[in-house]
Amino acid sequence: MNSSGMVPAGTELAREMGLSEEMAECIDNCRSCELVCLGMATGHCLRKGGRHVEEDHLRTMIVCARTCALAAEVLTTGSSLHRQMCAVCADVCDACIASCEDLDEMELCIEACRRCKDSCEAMTDM
Amino acid sequence: MNSSGMVPAGTELAREMGLSEEMAECIDNCRSCELVCLGMATGHCLRKGGRHVEEDHLRTMIVCARTCALAAEVLTTGSSLHRQMCAVCADVCDACIASCEDLDEMELCIEACRRCKDSCEAMTDM
Amino acid sequence: MNSSGMVPAGTELAREMGLSEEMAECIDNCRSCELVCLGMATGHCLRKGGRHVEEDHLRTMIVCARTCALAAEVLTTGSSLHRQMCAVCADVCDACIASCEDLDEMELCIEACRRCKDSCEAMTDM
Amino acid sequence: MNSSGMVPAGTELAREMGLSEEMAECIDNCRSCELVCLGMATGHCLRKGGRHVEEDHLRTMIVCARTCALAAEVLTTGSSLHRQMCAVCADVCDACIASCEDLDEMELCIEACRRCKDSCEAMTDM
Repeated sequence: MNSSGMVPAGTELAREMGLSEEMAECIDNCRSCELVCLGMATGHCLRKGGRHVEEDHLRTMIVCARTCALAAEVLTTGSSLHRQMCAVCADVCDACIASCEDLDEMELCIEACRRCKDSCEAMTDM
Repeated sequence: MNSSGMVPAGTELAREMGLSEEMAECIDNCRSCELVCLGMATGHCLRKGGRHVEEDHLRTMIVCARTCALAAEVLTTGSSLHRQMCAVCADVCDACIASCEDLDEMELCIEACRRCKDSCEAMTDM
Repeated sequence: MNSSGMVPAGTELAREMGLSEEMAECIDNCRSCELVCLGMATGHCLRKGGRHVEEDHLRTMIVCARTCALAAEVLTTGSSLHRQMCAVCADVCDACIASCEDLDEMELCIEACRRCKDSCEAMTDM
Repeated sequence: MNSSGMVPAGTELAREMGLSEEMAECIDNCRSCELVCLGMATGHCLRKGGRHVEEDHLRTMIVCARTCALAAEVLTTGSSLHRQMCAVCADVCDACIASCEDLDEMELCIEACRRCKDSCEAMTDM
């Protein structure tokens, strides 16, 4: 805990847990991507209908959310297997970007996937 | 996305997804609690040994991390089942607090569980 | 391992892990319910369209799959928190049954949720 | 449902959901591996103590359980991203086997990881 006796938020908390700045940021980006993919798959896409609810697209969105969640979890444990998990997470984000680029009003998802992918790729080199 | 073309972080992002301020904060508190419980269970507790690695304690820490993760997920989907999930999450946080209070250097976990529990309890009334 | 040197399947494996017959069966029923809810939400319901892709229904199916998965996980750890988790899982299965009963061709999901609910309710008394 | 009006178990259920025989078997092997890794990490290993509770070993066991769970989930959705997820699952199982081979009484885990790895590798070619 910091001097105020509060649990610090986000990256500050991760730093306090002994994670590097880069890992803390990657966890944050994975969590944001999970939030956007799952939230849009069960909200925006269902409301839009049509191509937004095609099987391939919705499956990709849901799998992307779940993969981001696991990448964040593995980073949190400090396991060295985070490299493999971040590599596959970057691939899945790429597939999600491709699935969203053909559709209207998926910019928030595309941007979240791009940031998550960039963070994850940086992790695979460490 | 906000005017800078960036994905906003944490509660701001959740708000942009159409979640209320309280839900956004609850998701954040669940995520912080998951991070602390899982990170300490697979780090601090294993390094301390002794009572910190007793079966009951480690199982409670891991189950608490996983329950917080699911509460955050259910809140993200916007499902009305978040009430039931937040209620059980508050119970599990309580059990985790009780398990940590007898042990040294678990203050960060106790504080994260308290904040998560308070947020989750507020959700069950809404 | 059994005498053939193979990993035994399903309930036999759970028994070998030291879980009771009832817990082993409950894990199996949770896993089956997860499989049916997630598989139908990302397949059958999307292909049917109409009321099968309404937000409330799909969210309930996905939350049910995820709750069943967590109940199975908690049972697997041997944590005494399985009682609380199985209680909420029974509630969520009930909500999923109600959501499916109004729709065509959801019998497989209704039956899987009923079995899972019955197993989970039996767990809360133990 | 089959003619008896019951939910069929395991691979039979997966087949009914439209999954191929190989996918159904892979889901079963992933679930068994998750059960063994998580169950032993939170039971057998904690009771043994010593090298069984070293950080690297327990983290690997927990990450392996979680990765197997996600591979089973992705296969269940029918997403074509199962190839990438099964590839990383095979890698993680390999790491778990290596971590267990140095330790006493981890044969059940080694065997479950081998079967899961073989199934997952077969999935990456399809």
